[in-house]
Amino acid sequence: MANLDRIFHALSDPTRRAVVERLRQGTASVTELAEPFGMALPSFMKHLGVLEKAGLMDSEKRGRMRQCRLSDGALAPISAWMADQRALWEDRTERLAELVENKELDR
Amino acid sequence: MANLDRIFHALSDPTRRAVVERLRQGTASVTELAEPFGMALPSFMKHLGVLEKAGLMDSEKRGRMRQCRLSDGALAPISAWMADQRALWEDRTERLAELVENKELDR
Repeated sequence: MANLDRIFHALSDPTRRAVVERLRQGTASVTELAEPFGMALPSFMKHLGVLEKAGLMDSEKRGRMRQCRLSDGALAPISAWMADQRALWEDRTERLAELVENKELDR
Repeated sequence: MANLDRIFHALSDPTRRAVVERLRQGTASVTELAEPFGMALPSFMKHLGVLEKAGLMDSEKRGRMRQCRLSDGALAPISAWMADQRALWEDRTERLAELVENKELDR
């Protein structure tokens, strides 16, 4: 539950969503990731920290570079929550259909 | 884009997600929605305000009650964003497959 809080919070920022989109296409160094944003590096690093704490991103030092990658199943908790929402919706639709059917039988 | 910010932010809180889950099952009055949370009503109303501003929820006054419902297509922007992420992932997997195929043709 707390993790879902952190993931949704991480994705509520356009810079962080853009980083996730970029990492979808493969690993990248911090420098490569930061380049399109024209943002001070400390501010950008804070965004990466939020993504890492939410479990969306991993990073490791390789020589003088820090290499970033999307975590395995990064977006799975959101997919699962969305699927639950669909299930609730389908349950409700099914109950409505049953109600209509029973009404018709009553006639 | 800004709307995606607001939707993800709205869903980063467990109370607000619970309200969305409840409304999935049908409309409810503010009193009914607030009941399970044991929260001061002004605090709870703030949560509802965040959901409304994100376009996730509508409410209308009926007599002395305020009736709340999930907006049509409330979660569609998130579904669309998730689908884009999958598409990026599939593009990448396709490119990898092509790369492997070309390597094999080179042999």
